[in-house]
Amino acid sequence: MAHRCDVIGVGIASWDTIGIVSRAPLMGAKQPLAGWIEAGGGPVPTALVTLQRLGMRGGLVSAVGDDRYGQHILDDLRREGVEIESVQVRPGQSHVAFALVEPDTGRRTIWWHNDRAVLQHIALDRAYLTTARALLLDTHIPEVALRAAHWMREANRLVMIDAERTSDQATALLPFCDAIIVSERFGREATGAEEPQQAAQALYEHYHALVVVTAGEQGSWCASRAGAFHTPAVTTVQVVDTTGAGDVFHGAFLYGLLQAWPLRVVARFASATAALKCRTFGGRAGIPCLDEVEALVRTEAPTGGGE
Amino acid sequence: MAHRCDVIGVGIASWDTIGIVSRAPLMGAKQPLAGWIEAGGGPVPTALVTLQRLGMRGGLVSAVGDDRYGQHILDDLRREGVEIESVQVRPGQSHVAFALVEPDTGRRTIWWHNDRAVLQHIALDRAYLTTARALLLDTHIPEVALRAAHWMREANRLVMIDAERTSDQATALLPFCDAIIVSERFGREATGAEEPQQAAQALYEHYHALVVVTAGEQGSWCASRAGAFHTPAVTTVQVVDTTGAGDVFHGAFLYGLLQAWPLRVVARFASATAALKCRTFGGRAGIPCLDEVEALVRTEAPTGGGE
Repeated sequence: MAHRCDVIGVGIASWDTIGIVSRAPLMGAKQPLAGWIEAGGGPVPTALVTLQRLGMRGGLVSAVGDDRYGQHILDDLRREGVEIESVQVRPGQSHVAFALVEPDTGRRTIWWHNDRAVLQHIALDRAYLTTARALLLDTHIPEVALRAAHWMREANRLVMIDAERTSDQATALLPFCDAIIVSERFGREATGAEEPQQAAQALYEHYHALVVVTAGEQGSWCASRAGAFHTPAVTTVQVVDTTGAGDVFHGAFLYGLLQAWPLRVVARFASATAALKCRTFGGRAGIPCLDEVEALVRTEAPTGGGE
Repeated sequence: MAHRCDVIGVGIASWDTIGIVSRAPLMGAKQPLAGWIEAGGGPVPTALVTLQRLGMRGGLVSAVGDDRYGQHILDDLRREGVEIESVQVRPGQSHVAFALVEPDTGRRTIWWHNDRAVLQHIALDRAYLTTARALLLDTHIPEVALRAAHWMREANRLVMIDAERTSDQATALLPFCDAIIVSERFGREATGAEEPQQAAQALYEHYHALVVVTAGEQGSWCASRAGAFHTPAVTTVQVVDTTGAGDVFHGAFLYGLLQAWPLRVVARFASATAALKCRTFGGRAGIPCLDEVEALVRTEAPTGGGE
């Protein structure tokens, strides 16, 4: 069977303006920035760009406004090779964000804005969707995500979710997912477990899916029917900006799952891909190609934490 | 003598993104915004737009980068009727700013960025400059400002400066100015006087120019050889956003000076024009036309503070 895309993603697409601060930012003042960058963003689109750089083909189901930001978002995805025929252009404002990046501390502050009407009633074509081998979801366009997850489950495709915050939308989607990747915060809020390791285990026992809890520089914790393990973050790459690092991790993790690699290999590969992204400012500029990730994985010792 | 422009301005031109917050902003978090606006900005360009709306003709001497922001800045000024033949387009980044506006408190937080190389060695044509009746300066392009001030002084034209912060550049420019409009902070820092009234008087005695110290909603203090007086801010207009209010005040003040109105009338007119700007988000959208200002001035009692 010919697949038009390896992965179809359903989620918000953003246009990000990134200000790089030269000293600790404060409220109520007028302050110079050391740098100013614009780039496409959004968890699912950035994961799809990661898949493209690694050599797979991604398609996006989303909506943007009929403003210049929407045009930038589409131009950028087109340049990366992501299929955008299912991204609808609607009257209204696109999702935009301004992020302050503090290189010294790694702290990020983000203000975002979108037009809810733009994201309503996004069309979804079942035939198109099920040509893909996997579905990647965020929790920001829940009605479309739910329909897509349902259809892809029925078609026996891999469904993966990136859940950042607990919400009714996220809770409704999780039972349809084969792979659940959540933030440390989500893990804590959803399970009450203080430690990512316990949160991963509790989520696995509840959903019987592969669960990954990511915790930035502390690495990630996987729990699945094959057992549980910790993967340390790759720390041999100089970190300049962590914007989008989680999204890149998700894209690379999905790449590894579709290669049917052992889970520990998948997790190390995702960790290395995310680390390489952090070399450069912006959510996508530093996303590596396959050769770069493989070279880094070879130099890193295959370490694994407690089972 | 035919004047191509009534006023030529020398100063930075900015492209501003304005985020309107829906709750108190904080660092290190991801926060939604109630609104997102883009608009042309910069003290001198906004004053020139004010002069255009009031019916005079302004021209700008400045430089922008060869990026899309520079294009937006030029398109916007062209639409307002400001002459932009002397705005140079240089390789590099334009001056950009992100402003967080808190409607509940009126507090504003601004991050800005520019490329110093873009603002270097801006050409200035003496013949063009001296066709104007007045020169308006900021302190951000000091070498060009100094040359322009010198030539306009020699040609017996009115030179007005908008000085926000004390600096060597500002200090070098002040002796060339007939009208010095400074912030409360500048007044305090330059003279050591805690009260705007004393700061205005001290600056007048030092420079023998017309001095205005502006203090937002507390109004403004003028000191000149004709005496000193306070002008209250106009408070009958609902304030939504004060971005650019000072710049609009400067433009309207210069308008009044060029009409040779009595100083108290000029100050009330500038105060009313600035107040009307604050009706609307953004630095320029709310700038009124002459009829609107005159209608507001008529309804306000002609109050004056202590001499």
